[in-house]
Amino acid sequence: MSIVLDGKATSNQIKEELAVQVTEIKNAGKRPPHLAAVLVGNDGASLTYVGSKVRSCERIGYDSTLIKLEDTITQEALINTIDKLNNDPLLDGFIVQLPLPKHIDEEAVLHAIEPSKDVDGFHPTNFGKMALGMETFIPATPFGIMELLKRYALNISGKHAVVIGRSHIVGRPMSILLSEKGNPGNATVTLTHSRTQNLAAITKEADIIVSALGVPNFVTADMVKQDAIIIDVGITRVPDANHPKGYVIVGDVAYDEVKDKASYITPVPGGVGPMTIAMLLQNTMLAYQRNQN
Amino acid sequence: MSIVLDGKATSNQIKEELAVQVTEIKNAGKRPPHLAAVLVGNDGASLTYVGSKVRSCERIGYDSTLIKLEDTITQEALINTIDKLNNDPLLDGFIVQLPLPKHIDEEAVLHAIEPSKDVDGFHPTNFGKMALGMETFIPATPFGIMELLKRYALNISGKHAVVIGRSHIVGRPMSILLSEKGNPGNATVTLTHSRTQNLAAITKEADIIVSALGVPNFVTADMVKQDAIIIDVGITRVPDANHPKGYVIVGDVAYDEVKDKASYITPVPGGVGPMTIAMLLQNTMLAYQRNQN
Repeated sequence: MSIVLDGKATSNQIKEELAVQVTEIKNAGKRPPHLAAVLVGNDGASLTYVGSKVRSCERIGYDSTLIKLEDTITQEALINTIDKLNNDPLLDGFIVQLPLPKHIDEEAVLHAIEPSKDVDGFHPTNFGKMALGMETFIPATPFGIMELLKRYALNISGKHAVVIGRSHIVGRPMSILLSEKGNPGNATVTLTHSRTQNLAAITKEADIIVSALGVPNFVTADMVKQDAIIIDVGITRVPDANHPKGYVIVGDVAYDEVKDKASYITPVPGGVGPMTIAMLLQNTMLAYQRNQN
Repeated sequence: MSIVLDGKATSNQIKEELAVQVTEIKNAGKRPPHLAAVLVGNDGASLTYVGSKVRSCERIGYDSTLIKLEDTITQEALINTIDKLNNDPLLDGFIVQLPLPKHIDEEAVLHAIEPSKDVDGFHPTNFGKMALGMETFIPATPFGIMELLKRYALNISGKHAVVIGRSHIVGRPMSILLSEKGNPGNATVTLTHSRTQNLAAITKEADIIVSALGVPNFVTADMVKQDAIIIDVGITRVPDANHPKGYVIVGDVAYDEVKDKASYITPVPGGVGPMTIAMLLQNTMLAYQRNQN
């Protein structure tokens, strides 16, 4: 029997802790932290994510601003908007929700964000600091996973962690954070990806698996060692006529068969997803504190 | 029988290619690339390295400047020197030789270098670009190893690479570069370090081993799979009364016993070391070209 790593409950606890800080800030007569989100176009999933981020801000007492832009906006106009946000002294941090329309160069846009306001941690300067073990904004999804391991007091020092997927947003930073000095940290980390040969042979040796592939039910019980820790970053929308929304969210891990083999496992939904939002709020608090100094 | 990856010959070839470029530049009536090196104190190894870098510049026709500072210099004075170099339009790139005296914060000094002149690639902005797969100055030692693999046309895609050591200068960037998309690249990479359990079991599975530990003769034949590619980054000075210099340079790999098992292997000296200098010169050429545009 495995223990469920309850991302939802942990996320709520982090939000409560942040709400307490906000109350103290307001009681001291100061303005609260302020996060803005830039949304380009009307992608359904993006609307959901951004809406959830804005609501979370409101719930814990942050100021929040949602900037909705047409998907016909030019790259230049988008970067002008970002410049205004960069220069707004009452804004602590902001995110640009991905993906962007195809006519816009995502890299150019992300690099236009002032690093001190880049609470997603995607700017090269922040990414470099993270990779060099310095204090910075850590991308929210891998940060959330580290925080989950920390709050459940799981010791990964010297253990073998296998990360599936080398995206800049999850897999790559995850592989770095797990192997850095610190607690949690100090794991021996193998980063696997689409070109990896004999993946199952590698995952079977893992004490910890972090799957960030985006393929439903990819990690099956035969790929997992007894008592491994399983972290599922997958959130694929699979059409389901029986569900009121017309789809269900499915993880990378075949949960029902893997859960009996794992020592700890994150569910989907309710695992890594809620942690991501909590850590975005945490990064915003850090940006606020720096902005106040 | 293994094939020796001849870093000295490859390094000389790269230098010759750069020298041809320099001749073309000079023939076009332009100034050549210009590299400066800052050396603080009189550490023997540092003097050797810096001297070698300066001589290499001269040999291929670069301008070079050696700035020698007393080891009593304050951090502030050192950073003032760096500021001057940052603002010198006729200087394309510079390095600060490590280690620095203990009263100086190395991180603060390295971060004072303007990223566009940071030909060592240690600044967070450059390190982040490297980790995000963007064009930038790549730290010279891992860059040299990638170039060696490239020039010997060794295909590592999908192969299992094991990196020993997680330093910011070698192990960490090496683990990233080997796993990035590209050729060479696309390897499945395991980063191991002082906390790793059962290291030998991991290295025995490796198609490629990169050892950057600094412990003489650490990697023995029993830790190596038949036909593995062996890259030895170790350059430890071991006292030797029979040698005119009073020491010999010894690598991390027990060369005599490992060489018969490996398919390819770098010697020490004459392997990774010379490549490091060649790639520093390559980075300086890139800085020059950017500076001219």
